[in-house]
Amino acid sequence: MSYTAPIRDQRFALETSADLASLQALDAFSAVDDDLVDAILTESGRFAAGVFAPLNRVGDQVGATLKDGIVTLPDGFREAYRQYVEGGWGSLGGAAEHGGQGLPFALATACQEQLTSANMAFSLCPMLTLGSIEALTAHASPHLQATYLTRLISGEWTGTMNLTEPQAGSDVGALRTVAVPAGDGTWRIKGQKIYITWGEHDVADNIVHLVLARTPDAPAGTKGISLFVVPKFLPDENGNFTKRNDLTCVGLEEKLGIHASPTCTMSYGDNDACTGFIVGEELGGMRAMFTMMNHARINVGLQGVAIAERAYQQAARYARERVQSAKIGDPARTPAPIIEHADVRRMLMTMRAVTEGTRALTYANAAAVDRAHALPEGDERRAAKGRADLLTPITKAYATDMGVEMASLGVQVHGGMGYVEETGAAQHYRDARIAPIYEGTNGIQALDLTGRKLNMDGGAHWRALAEEMRADVERVPAAMRVALAGAVQAFVDGASWLSAEGRDPNDAAAGAQPFCRLAGHTICAWLLAKQAGEAQRRLADGKDEAFLTAKIATANVFVTQIAPQAAALLPAVTAGQDPLYAVPGDML
Amino acid sequence: MSYTAPIRDQRFALETSADLASLQALDAFSAVDDDLVDAILTESGRFAAGVFAPLNRVGDQVGATLKDGIVTLPDGFREAYRQYVEGGWGSLGGAAEHGGQGLPFALATACQEQLTSANMAFSLCPMLTLGSIEALTAHASPHLQATYLTRLISGEWTGTMNLTEPQAGSDVGALRTVAVPAGDGTWRIKGQKIYITWGEHDVADNIVHLVLARTPDAPAGTKGISLFVVPKFLPDENGNFTKRNDLTCVGLEEKLGIHASPTCTMSYGDNDACTGFIVGEELGGMRAMFTMMNHARINVGLQGVAIAERAYQQAARYARERVQSAKIGDPARTPAPIIEHADVRRMLMTMRAVTEGTRALTYANAAAVDRAHALPEGDERRAAKGRADLLTPITKAYATDMGVEMASLGVQVHGGMGYVEETGAAQHYRDARIAPIYEGTNGIQALDLTGRKLNMDGGAHWRALAEEMRADVERVPAAMRVALAGAVQAFVDGASWLSAEGRDPNDAAAGAQPFCRLAGHTICAWLLAKQAGEAQRRLADGKDEAFLTAKIATANVFVTQIAPQAAALLPAVTAGQDPLYAVPGDML
Repeated sequence: MSYTAPIRDQRFALETSADLASLQALDAFSAVDDDLVDAILTESGRFAAGVFAPLNRVGDQVGATLKDGIVTLPDGFREAYRQYVEGGWGSLGGAAEHGGQGLPFALATACQEQLTSANMAFSLCPMLTLGSIEALTAHASPHLQATYLTRLISGEWTGTMNLTEPQAGSDVGALRTVAVPAGDGTWRIKGQKIYITWGEHDVADNIVHLVLARTPDAPAGTKGISLFVVPKFLPDENGNFTKRNDLTCVGLEEKLGIHASPTCTMSYGDNDACTGFIVGEELGGMRAMFTMMNHARINVGLQGVAIAERAYQQAARYARERVQSAKIGDPARTPAPIIEHADVRRMLMTMRAVTEGTRALTYANAAAVDRAHALPEGDERRAAKGRADLLTPITKAYATDMGVEMASLGVQVHGGMGYVEETGAAQHYRDARIAPIYEGTNGIQALDLTGRKLNMDGGAHWRALAEEMRADVERVPAAMRVALAGAVQAFVDGASWLSAEGRDPNDAAAGAQPFCRLAGHTICAWLLAKQAGEAQRRLADGKDEAFLTAKIATANVFVTQIAPQAAALLPAVTAGQDPLYAVPGDML
Repeated sequence: MSYTAPIRDQRFALETSADLASLQALDAFSAVDDDLVDAILTESGRFAAGVFAPLNRVGDQVGATLKDGIVTLPDGFREAYRQYVEGGWGSLGGAAEHGGQGLPFALATACQEQLTSANMAFSLCPMLTLGSIEALTAHASPHLQATYLTRLISGEWTGTMNLTEPQAGSDVGALRTVAVPAGDGTWRIKGQKIYITWGEHDVADNIVHLVLARTPDAPAGTKGISLFVVPKFLPDENGNFTKRNDLTCVGLEEKLGIHASPTCTMSYGDNDACTGFIVGEELGGMRAMFTMMNHARINVGLQGVAIAERAYQQAARYARERVQSAKIGDPARTPAPIIEHADVRRMLMTMRAVTEGTRALTYANAAAVDRAHALPEGDERRAAKGRADLLTPITKAYATDMGVEMASLGVQVHGGMGYVEETGAAQHYRDARIAPIYEGTNGIQALDLTGRKLNMDGGAHWRALAEEMRADVERVPAAMRVALAGAVQAFVDGASWLSAEGRDPNDAAAGAQPFCRLAGHTICAWLLAKQAGEAQRRLADGKDEAFLTAKIATANVFVTQIAPQAAALLPAVTAGQDPLYAVPGDML
């Protein structure tokens, strides 16, 4: 059940789908040369495989435990996290002025993928910290940044996102946690939050909670929400963070998977003495939350990629080793490794194709974020921002749905062994299932895509993407053109219908989920077909033949056999709400 | 987390998709009048909901435990099983001459569905017993039948199927368990079997193991296999079954789900004193096994239906109760039950449509088995047998794949609550995952479909089905015709390609899985469209309006929004093996 970082494909996806060279050409990333990229991918992959991966199984079996408000991780986690901090793995994408390495998000994403494949539950701890870093970088005062940001970027402290309350899940605006001014510039926080990932643990010395709360006289709904930093430990008179804040973990969820990721119920201000510091303006909480969530959404999409990769590696290894039945038509009837059987081969090629496709999508999305930050103000930067915003819900929803399906295929490749927990395949199936749910359910993502992103700037961004894809059809390998063109046309048809003038928003909502999947199929097909085109060009140079040939073959399976499903989703995209409401709710 | 048997839809599916009236017209089922059908469905549903369902959660949480060779089920299971036997629920489909009620398999299937929805892990015990009954009915000597069949049909004893060994999974022919003549007409069995469902337990007084083994000098492979009855208890000098046979449960698997179904490693003949009785002829084991497995395959397909129904009921209930966010466009912004949101509605309607579609398929399959048994010898009977054989792998593979997907959707409807074990949605997701694996993996089913069933009798059976579907296109509601015609055409195209003269079997094998799914989409669409047509006709009579209207609406979602995926699978069906082998196995 070991893991090997797929550095070759990661590197290729960065070069082609994330257009690494164009990132390197930006001032912000001028120090990021090819050797550095190689060194980081290699070392990070080694770290993930050597330090995080060996803890994946014990993390699942023992999990996080809660006693008297203290959450304990299995042996080895604290030490592994120490190594993570010492290696500087938390600071890759952090801003240089706060001690970060200022590397492209796309590159940090590749490293985060490795950690997540190695140990999804554990990787959530750094992932949540990244979200906190984003929010504080964008919105916090210089003072808060000086105190908290540096230690979050170093990884010395970890961060959390506190949004959900029992009555406020997808509807964040319904939250009731309150913050009242303490008179000294700080705030008193009071309320209970649920589903707080890594809300309490023993792997780092302080936990920086980012908490959404309602200030006195704030308007109802999302407009009345503010964001606060609420550290587990406050500074004492000497400035050392030893003073326990009034917050407690009062419960851990018993979950289907990611058992090593403590999912906490957090209680703030039981003794009316919970101190918080406001982030940005009062009532600016939703904006800050979106900053925090946007990148988190890409990173959750990445979990789909990562778990698919891990499940794929494990399934392929099993299929090479497990001998069962002769290949059809073998006159000698010699039992063969099951990897030689066509149906097993189909499962593995599907897993490989979907993993590489969603990886391309996720890296392309991350690179668009990089460009949106690092390009000079202007049209190109606005276009990059639009592309990043458009892709984010697709990355999150499509890649995580695929992650679940690929983990399920991984179980299937194992046959009966897949259903036995000992094998490890079942853990991926359990772990993967959270990703379509958290950071905004995939239904919410689809609504974000069709309700907001398609209509941003008058539809400019989806049209620009469609134009780019259309123009590329003639540039990809000939065998893929018809299938790619069909998917792109479906994307255009779907987007046009959904964003048509006067379209009833509930009709669009009814088609949102199928369109989001349609878009995922199409964009992954496009990116993989482009990768295949690049592979063909490089093959002409005569190097790296095995990898490049495999790349073309894998892209071919995605584009010609999976992508045709895009067009088949159009009837569901364009059917409107009526068919879905034709059975009354009380009869369902 | 309660369960209500969907009697209204079950009854309608029996009437329309199983053509209950034509079964009632057969001599064998002349006593099966409508009142009897109603009474059985109602009482069986009440039993499942009242006795089996309350044990579903404790079964999952506590599970079966093994100590010193004794397997114990949680409190309540033994008593519930006693009630099952007393109620005569095990004897519905059994032959009258052995104390059975001789009811149609289709009707027994509906009752088995209820048990499975109520408690999938528990329902496996009766299900495996049914397989043993089939095998003994078809192949055992009158003496064996007199001894074992009556008690299996009554349910007093339970049955198992012992096929798998560590090196012999899908490749049954590789098994090594041996049987040697004991000199007194009995046989000595020796060997170890794995994955034996309900191989040992404490809910019944005796366990009748059906064990595949190799006799001395038997040829290699499947031709060398014979089937044996190996009871846990043998008769003592008084004819009471108190004498312990030499067989032991030496291990229980720790599984992803169905925790209340003990999955045993069984050791036979550790002391060279394990007595077995041959079933049918020596070397006739495979034939007997197929008898046993064919019905088991339909019953496993049924598990997909049952778990989808259960997950659907739970999700719908949650969606009616959970209030979150206003419906889009509500000017008052009043938080609404999530069942009012279009995306949740889509998930529920999808679950409903797929459940009803796979139910129709499964019942139609079971009814074809009934006709194949009960019709007089002749063309009609041969056609029924061909239909039953053709549908069986589709029922098994398609319904179980859908069961997994619907259970996953059920988790999704719950949002974060779905990932918490307390809710119960996650249990369905875990339980459902075994069904695509056991009783022949779905990959094996697909190969059976394309490699054997499409070519039976020169392709007569798939052509007959295609003709029937085609002829029905004009008879279904107008709104469904185009979509249904498209799916039927895809079925014809796929089947024609796969069974074309001279087709390389490995090319066909490469397209087997996508074709099996294509066939499932198409046949379910056809059956539901026909149901909708019948519903329209009955609506004209002015009765049962709510149910019939909902039926049409549900069928409409399946036929117009899900079935279009059938044609999109054709490229994968017809691509052949080369794309799947273009990456060498050692690079996967």
